[in-house]
Amino acid sequence: MDDTAAALDPAAMLAVALEEARTGRAEGGVPVGAALFGPDGRLLGRGRNRRVQDGDPAAHGETSAFRAAGRLRGYGDTTMVTTLSPCWFCSGLVRQFGIGAVVIGEARTFQGGHEWLAGFGVRVTVLDDPECVALMRDFIAARPDLWEEDIGR
Amino acid sequence: MDDTAAALDPAAMLAVALEEARTGRAEGGVPVGAALFGPDGRLLGRGRNRRVQDGDPAAHGETSAFRAAGRLRGYGDTTMVTTLSPCWFCSGLVRQFGIGAVVIGEARTFQGGHEWLAGFGVRVTVLDDPECVALMRDFIAARPDLWEEDIGR
Repeated sequence: MDDTAAALDPAAMLAVALEEARTGRAEGGVPVGAALFGPDGRLLGRGRNRRVQDGDPAAHGETSAFRAAGRLRGYGDTTMVTTLSPCWFCSGLVRQFGIGAVVIGEARTFQGGHEWLAGFGVRVTVLDDPECVALMRDFIAARPDLWEEDIGR
Repeated sequence: MDDTAAALDPAAMLAVALEEARTGRAEGGVPVGAALFGPDGRLLGRGRNRRVQDGDPAAHGETSAFRAAGRLRGYGDTTMVTTLSPCWFCSGLVRQFGIGAVVIGEARTFQGGHEWLAGFGVRVTVLDDPECVALMRDFIAARPDLWEEDIGR
């Protein structure tokens, strides 16, 4: 995909995050993917949960995408897209850095802090995407131990 | 310091975090350090803000210490000690992973989510340590640009 192809279309942005999530699943990891986009639809960073791959418990989809974007000044006009409702860690990331918008693949299999974020004025869109739901449902059924580890249960 | 020397004494634990913060300052970085301790006072991981050193905007003191501890199951009996009140990103980390206690060097120069955490039952101790305050005051006066970047202002 061209870096600007998404152009802030939620479904097109989600496709980038979903590709990351599928890659993570194929690697034996937690299938959550994310990407950070600029106001012009330019992809700033993309990433996936890498708990298994890197042995890194802080590498959630959103934190990986945020890291991949490098050091930036000001996130108010950026959009974080993620395949799954952001956990409290990743919701805290959005709040602290003032990321302006969050696009979420699904919030059925897990719900983190996206309603909390909306209360602070973050523009939150939940797409309720069936592919995101299926990916997580299958993963949680197959690896409940890994999933619970990833969310600190 | 011996790995178990701290033995959950707040001042001894803070000394580890403060050493990290001072190292970070000497490296030209944001001087916030942290460490994660187990219930027996064993040091599980320690780290410091590495935004400048690694070009990593997600490397706050607390996230660095959490990563250094590697993959763990259950954080309820762990203590995160940090030189500075945890920002929302790091407060979200504590909440999501259920870290049981947070020891904070100071909350004068910056206040993140530690009161929010206390409201969820996290045992929060603020030491109001003058060395931690001085370290941050000097840093913020010297590098306001870097400090504001680090907290997304």
